[in-house]
Amino acid sequence: MIEQPTDPDRPNLVVIGGGFAGLAFCQNCKVPTRPNAPAPEIILIDKQNHHLFQPLLYQVAMAGLAATEIAAPLRAVLGKRQDITCLMDEATSIDPVNKKVVMGDREIAYDYLVLAAGGRTSYFGNDHWEKHAPGLKTLHDALRIRRRVLTAFEKAETILDTAEQERLMTIVVVGGGPTGVELAGAMGELVQKVFHRDFRRIDVRTARVILIESNERLLKVYPEELSASAQRQLEQLGVEVRLGVRVSNVHDTHVELNDGTSIQTRNVLWGAGVAASPLTAAFADSAELDRGGRIKVNPDLSVPGHPEVFAVGDLVNLTTKDGDPVPGVAPAALQMGKHVAKLVEHEFKHGKQPPEAREAFEYWDKGSMATIGRKRAVAWVGKLKISGFFAWVAWLGIHLMFLVTFRNKVSVLVQWCYSYLAFRRGARIIIPKNDDKPDQPGVRD
Amino acid sequence: MIEQPTDPDRPNLVVIGGGFAGLAFCQNCKVPTRPNAPAPEIILIDKQNHHLFQPLLYQVAMAGLAATEIAAPLRAVLGKRQDITCLMDEATSIDPVNKKVVMGDREIAYDYLVLAAGGRTSYFGNDHWEKHAPGLKTLHDALRIRRRVLTAFEKAETILDTAEQERLMTIVVVGGGPTGVELAGAMGELVQKVFHRDFRRIDVRTARVILIESNERLLKVYPEELSASAQRQLEQLGVEVRLGVRVSNVHDTHVELNDGTSIQTRNVLWGAGVAASPLTAAFADSAELDRGGRIKVNPDLSVPGHPEVFAVGDLVNLTTKDGDPVPGVAPAALQMGKHVAKLVEHEFKHGKQPPEAREAFEYWDKGSMATIGRKRAVAWVGKLKISGFFAWVAWLGIHLMFLVTFRNKVSVLVQWCYSYLAFRRGARIIIPKNDDKPDQPGVRD
Repeated sequence: MIEQPTDPDRPNLVVIGGGFAGLAFCQNCKVPTRPNAPAPEIILIDKQNHHLFQPLLYQVAMAGLAATEIAAPLRAVLGKRQDITCLMDEATSIDPVNKKVVMGDREIAYDYLVLAAGGRTSYFGNDHWEKHAPGLKTLHDALRIRRRVLTAFEKAETILDTAEQERLMTIVVVGGGPTGVELAGAMGELVQKVFHRDFRRIDVRTARVILIESNERLLKVYPEELSASAQRQLEQLGVEVRLGVRVSNVHDTHVELNDGTSIQTRNVLWGAGVAASPLTAAFADSAELDRGGRIKVNPDLSVPGHPEVFAVGDLVNLTTKDGDPVPGVAPAALQMGKHVAKLVEHEFKHGKQPPEAREAFEYWDKGSMATIGRKRAVAWVGKLKISGFFAWVAWLGIHLMFLVTFRNKVSVLVQWCYSYLAFRRGARIIIPKNDDKPDQPGVRD
Repeated sequence: MIEQPTDPDRPNLVVIGGGFAGLAFCQNCKVPTRPNAPAPEIILIDKQNHHLFQPLLYQVAMAGLAATEIAAPLRAVLGKRQDITCLMDEATSIDPVNKKVVMGDREIAYDYLVLAAGGRTSYFGNDHWEKHAPGLKTLHDALRIRRRVLTAFEKAETILDTAEQERLMTIVVVGGGPTGVELAGAMGELVQKVFHRDFRRIDVRTARVILIESNERLLKVYPEELSASAQRQLEQLGVEVRLGVRVSNVHDTHVELNDGTSIQTRNVLWGAGVAASPLTAAFADSAELDRGGRIKVNPDLSVPGHPEVFAVGDLVNLTTKDGDPVPGVAPAALQMGKHVAKLVEHEFKHGKQPPEAREAFEYWDKGSMATIGRKRAVAWVGKLKISGFFAWVAWLGIHLMFLVTFRNKVSVLVQWCYSYLAFRRGARIIIPKNDDKPDQPGVRD
């Protein structure tokens, strides 16, 4: 157990999760103190030691970018903030009555808690599918997908069994939302543009990428014409789009569909479902959770019944004034983190307020985008809808701007553009794990 | 089993290992064929799908470079050579009588074999130490060392047990040869220059890096004055050098030394011993192997008793005309690969020759170098000995030239220089493996 100071001048602000929402809170919250008083401590707890630029995670999965290019160590990002302590640890539960975060056999007390633990892949009650159908939420997931797909094609090159070769050369992506569309586009491009020059014995043109979506169109929250455009653009990359069917079972060698057919494959990628971190269950007594475990928060983003606890990012269920749900995207998470930082600063300056007296969060919709391969995309902002190359240029521009702020170095931008456009070959290495030995018990990671 | 063509016009040249020696052979061997005849097939077998720039592996271990920056996929490096097929597979044994390489349940026949399988870490009969004391031969090793050391300091930051904190903050490097010296220097710099600004609760100045060498001086094959200089330079980086003691046992929590003392530590890095690939045992009947399993080859680099088999790189035991051993370094491996490529080409043009009629290999010594941290090194070429900053600049120049040829892109050079000098922060991320699930049986890697 970690003892924390209980000095009322030095309250503990505990933040769980160093994603977009948690990091935006930390970067924007500079709690004022009385003259000469020590600054209060902000404690950021994260399972990982890095912040991840999640919108580009699918690029790591398709070996277009290296893992290090979309991640930054939290300690380095927050290095100048002497009032912030990073703890690389996993919050296992929360005790809202005694205001404590539990991390295994340790506890940490909080005066304010910012819950920014994000989401995880959901298999709709079929968690055993996970070992055959990895999701895409972490760097580890992305590297696992990359290793599997690259290894499958390497394996196909070495064997003579044609049925097994077909299985190894078939990639099934489940889910036609933004994650599934981006993954399928990336895999289509990987096979068509990269693999074709790499192999000698297998004919890569016979490889298949199949995208499965249970709705009658892709990207169902997008306008219909963009759904149709996304489908056309995927088909140009050789992706077979199958609509109106659902995966009913996932096996080692094939997937079963609810229309009675099945697809022989060794590569199933899961882009279908997201649920909130299980930590939200701690607030089920006083707050309502939706089916995905997201907390229905107060308008100020505080958790009902716990004015000192705020929920931000992907684990929040909130609707805008127009009645639309706030989407689980990076800009929403950033805006929420900043909003809570402002509220907390305000309370330190002017004293505590009840949730209903606090300023309500307003989501500023910057539009939605999904990219398809390296030169195609669909995008819409309000009434403006664009698709194809220009949508992709817009997507690239916005993400590069983001990355530059994020990594803060122009030379990195140059290198990154080059890598991105040239299909950086270095990222195509497979780092094996078969010779792995157990690590020391003391520092198991 | 893979069937290979037995057409005498299309002999199989099988190469085991895509390191410096194997790759140099492939790149330099362009076997001439009769007009209009199809080119013979060169088959390159490697456990990994990438070539590794091993001299910089310790930089990956200390989080100074990303794994992808020192590796290149073999398929990409050899992409233009339609006559070369890469198989990502492990050669498990060799049958020199029937001229076959065995890979698990498959076999491949050869007319010429180039054995370039390199070396592996040796624990002098104490293989059980490996789980506590990782060596540094592969990308996986380097990432394991990085993950362990970074995780140990993260863990120290979260706990209150001061004895355990000390263990976590003590790094013991075993072996004072070039690998151990480079590792110890890199770790000293990592702790002194990087960690000091990263942590809040632990005092990184109390962290220790200890280098243990059983001889009375470091770098025993170097001139004595350079050994003394290396020691001084390491001590400037805060490394404690302990000479004349040997590790007698390695435990989870400490190492025992043969002087009766022990050191409490959770981080033991093994830089002490290298042995040849166990594949060399296949030739123990006709050729002499040394204690490390290296083959005592003929002057032309063929294996005694098997004129169609050549051994190159780190698994070779050979002395120069002056009686000095050819060292296990990258330039020697490159030179051997090229030499054998020339011999094989010659035999295809002019017919087979007995080993004694072939040109003998001559090693051109380009000097030796070991770098200590980022601004220090020791180097010698013939009678010239330099140390300190100028030796480091020479080291940097030579390695950068190498890397440029290797990666073949100037923009990579620019990025790399920048990363190298700025302590690229991206590489400091920890990619965990604790949520790892078994992969599909069909594509286990």
